[in-house]
Amino acid sequence: MGDTDKNSPIGVFDSGVGGLTVVKELMEQLPKERIIYYGDTARVPYGNKSRETVIRYSREIAGFLCEQNVKAIVVACNTASALALDELNKSVEVPIIGVVKPGARAAADVSKKGKIGVIATRATVNSGIYEAYLKGKKPEIEVFAKACPLFVPLVEEGLTDDPITDSIIHMYLDELLEKGIDSLVLGCTHYPLLKDSIARVVGENVTLVNPAFETARSFKMLLEEKGLLSEGKEGQESENRNMFYVSDSPDQFRSFAGNVLSIGIGAEDVKVKAFAG
Amino acid sequence: MGDTDKNSPIGVFDSGVGGLTVVKELMEQLPKERIIYYGDTARVPYGNKSRETVIRYSREIAGFLCEQNVKAIVVACNTASALALDELNKSVEVPIIGVVKPGARAAADVSKKGKIGVIATRATVNSGIYEAYLKGKKPEIEVFAKACPLFVPLVEEGLTDDPITDSIIHMYLDELLEKGIDSLVLGCTHYPLLKDSIARVVGENVTLVNPAFETARSFKMLLEEKGLLSEGKEGQESENRNMFYVSDSPDQFRSFAGNVLSIGIGAEDVKVKAFAG
Repeated sequence: MGDTDKNSPIGVFDSGVGGLTVVKELMEQLPKERIIYYGDTARVPYGNKSRETVIRYSREIAGFLCEQNVKAIVVACNTASALALDELNKSVEVPIIGVVKPGARAAADVSKKGKIGVIATRATVNSGIYEAYLKGKKPEIEVFAKACPLFVPLVEEGLTDDPITDSIIHMYLDELLEKGIDSLVLGCTHYPLLKDSIARVVGENVTLVNPAFETARSFKMLLEEKGLLSEGKEGQESENRNMFYVSDSPDQFRSFAGNVLSIGIGAEDVKVKAFAG
Repeated sequence: MGDTDKNSPIGVFDSGVGGLTVVKELMEQLPKERIIYYGDTARVPYGNKSRETVIRYSREIAGFLCEQNVKAIVVACNTASALALDELNKSVEVPIIGVVKPGARAAADVSKKGKIGVIATRATVNSGIYEAYLKGKKPEIEVFAKACPLFVPLVEEGLTDDPITDSIIHMYLDELLEKGIDSLVLGCTHYPLLKDSIARVVGENVTLVNPAFETARSFKMLLEEKGLLSEGKEGQESENRNMFYVSDSPDQFRSFAGNVLSIGIGAEDVKVKAFAG
């Protein structure tokens, strides 16, 4: 683990801005931890890319975070968790978790009928990873997965509450509802921002599972187990503030953080770090 | 121009698959030319990226095409044309054209009232380049530009003819119609694939301008002027076939080319060429 200790920062990365939904949960559940976030905004989205490309990008970013002496890493991106976590586990020396396993575990716990819907990017759905985890936990579980590529651009257009969005939610989810699902994993970091609209369409008999929340819980347990919980003051108040790195212009990143997630990030707290390509 | 001559291939590049709409026009208007296409499918889309990033990516690709000894380059991506063409003109030795100028010229010619709508990515709209070209041609022209970030994912979802798409077209275009536009530039390579739906919404009093078509015309004139028209047999039939390079998996690229554009591309004609990052 090099020269890291329990008061070293934690690393969080995502393909772009969406991972800030995970940061928000981490800030609430682990207020003493200092966060170094990397958002690959120049190469976003990962959701339609191949496994090889997502692994290559994820390795670069994890390597960069390790150079910042993080004590542990959260892969906040569902696609990177689905496609690259196994590879990262081989090459990264600090503890590392993704968002898929915590999300799947919560869904298995919450589902009474064992009929679980998973919505995610095309790459995550094609990986079959949610299904593998869920069936690994309870083999009798039935999983109905659906890629919803329009959800991310809808969120980024600010259409989180709009009749058009409701139509698109129906287009994607009606077939899952016909299968009788009783829980639905929001398997992409942007989707929790559509939570209210999705809840309205699927009705109260379907429980929505937010992997961001579950991941922050699991990560807290992981740090406890490893004796890595920070003893410091609350991160946001200490002089060692959270740091954000992006591969493209910081402005859109800060504006999304402020507008959509109510996370205020100062201009001096966002730096550009692009990789060679 | 190194060791290129009139029978060397032409280079075409785009952020991904959309530039194939330009390839299709080039194949029709210049059937004897052999095309080397580069689609940056690992880093697509460019439309929300910063000028600096788009210039960096475009330089890498233009450099790669020059290594393939192309005699001239078409920047098929509106965003790259808007943000990077001036920079490329400084560093690339072969003739190079983008899609913005031909599209703007055609719109200026076709508009009777001088009220022109431009729809494009956010980066292209923010660059103000269509407006600058149009006003440079006729200062009295009024330009109404609108970014339509949902159009590309709608096309990629196959929703080119769907009530949801009509609603989204209304959402974006009603304000331009209220301004009284009489022509509309489809300023992103994917938008011509929504042409029928857009035409239905805007009505017959608005002329749609497809920069892909205009660019192929302008490029043909450029090759004529420079004495660079190929003397070879029709490219698709000769043994020197068109070649396609992509930065991510070739499968999705080939399937889009086949399904959406009816351009059949053999597996052996698509190679992966990724840059370092």
